[in-house]
Amino acid sequence: MIEIYNERFADVEVLHAVPARMKQFPLPTVIFYHGFTSSKLVYSYFAVALAQRGFRVVMPDALDHGARYSGDAHARLQKFWPILKNSIDEFPALYQALINSGGVAEGRLAVGGASMGGMTALGIMARQPEVRCVACLMGSGYFTTLAQTLFPPSVEVRDKIIVSLKDYDVGEQLEALSNRPLLLWHGEEDDVVPAVETFRLQQALGANKLDKNLTCVWEAGVKHRITPEALDATSQFFVRYL
Amino acid sequence: MIEIYNERFADVEVLHAVPARMKQFPLPTVIFYHGFTSSKLVYSYFAVALAQRGFRVVMPDALDHGARYSGDAHARLQKFWPILKNSIDEFPALYQALINSGGVAEGRLAVGGASMGGMTALGIMARQPEVRCVACLMGSGYFTTLAQTLFPPSVEVRDKIIVSLKDYDVGEQLEALSNRPLLLWHGEEDDVVPAVETFRLQQALGANKLDKNLTCVWEAGVKHRITPEALDATSQFFVRYL
Repeated sequence: MIEIYNERFADVEVLHAVPARMKQFPLPTVIFYHGFTSSKLVYSYFAVALAQRGFRVVMPDALDHGARYSGDAHARLQKFWPILKNSIDEFPALYQALINSGGVAEGRLAVGGASMGGMTALGIMARQPEVRCVACLMGSGYFTTLAQTLFPPSVEVRDKIIVSLKDYDVGEQLEALSNRPLLLWHGEEDDVVPAVETFRLQQALGANKLDKNLTCVWEAGVKHRITPEALDATSQFFVRYL
Repeated sequence: MIEIYNERFADVEVLHAVPARMKQFPLPTVIFYHGFTSSKLVYSYFAVALAQRGFRVVMPDALDHGARYSGDAHARLQKFWPILKNSIDEFPALYQALINSGGVAEGRLAVGGASMGGMTALGIMARQPEVRCVACLMGSGYFTTLAQTLFPPSVEVRDKIIVSLKDYDVGEQLEALSNRPLLLWHGEEDDVVPAVETFRLQQALGANKLDKNLTCVWEAGVKHRITPEALDATSQFFVRYL
């Protein structure tokens, strides 16, 4: 049995999942981030799957999503990149709140996410050395180039937003993505975040001999969706490395 | 807080979600069916959302999915229609097991599902008058025509399978879909189960003046995926009618 709570950590509403009767005890902990125009609730199956494997799972809503949604879908569509950046910026406070709660066993805290959430996870890995391992499903860390084609900001603010993403892009921070276990999963027919984004990162890490901690899983014939195999690969990765 | 268990009902492994400390008490109950090549675990966010609204939720794995998966993905791709039919055929035993458990308050049992699961839900509604209300997300009840184009059976068995679906098709059973509350949700850009399938059912019910219990929700610009709005419409529907 697992338990799932709605709570607030660091001023953000989160889903909080734990194995039965373990809420008050330290556990290896995964912070998991949902995708764009979705919510922590729609991605809560990651909380179910990981709590069933013994983890504490904390899933925040991104800015303007779920419990934080303004209701203006059109305006939100223009804000993909600022929302992504905001989730990365909010991580240290969420991390500290979790550590202070006493719920994290021996600093064993990992980050994962899918789609925009996977991109959030990679951005956090590049900046936060305290994270033990990271799973990125159907995401990308090449923010500054991808922002040209994926939910591109309006012309007036494009340059400013892309400059603001420069310190978050993984292209210049391959070392930080190589010194801890990293799982990349991508459906090969992804029609939203192209699978070539993950291939590019895999190649870059390999070319620099930085891929000894990398696990790369491809799934043929799969578009932009999470399969049972992707979910299971995520669970297995955290069981092994966290 | 909610609780989620893995259990067996009527010889099938299910996810079983309930509000905190309510497992042993009668509750309005939703049986919810997952989509093709997916699993009860990947769709478990429906269990989370509905248990948070006070329902008991039971989610079985379809034949050759999740805990019942043979591991042969290629063979399974040929079996969409027999698997769908099997879920409909398994419903009476699952229903009876749940009633016998004492967990269903006053016969208040509903069925829902998404994609193949939505099609399962419509097929059950057409055949089982004891079901109180039904939610079908991005599905179709026109099995015999859709089987020509969606995961069509191989030529050798096609005629036999399509004949076997005839008694399950909703085309001849509009009355049974009209005498209890029915929610249809579909993303207008669905690239797997065409939204016109839901439009066809809406039109058929309307043309026969059988749409007074029908709630139809369309979402513009959405492909084959469940949005927070779709999940919320499902929760609200069951809160109102179950």
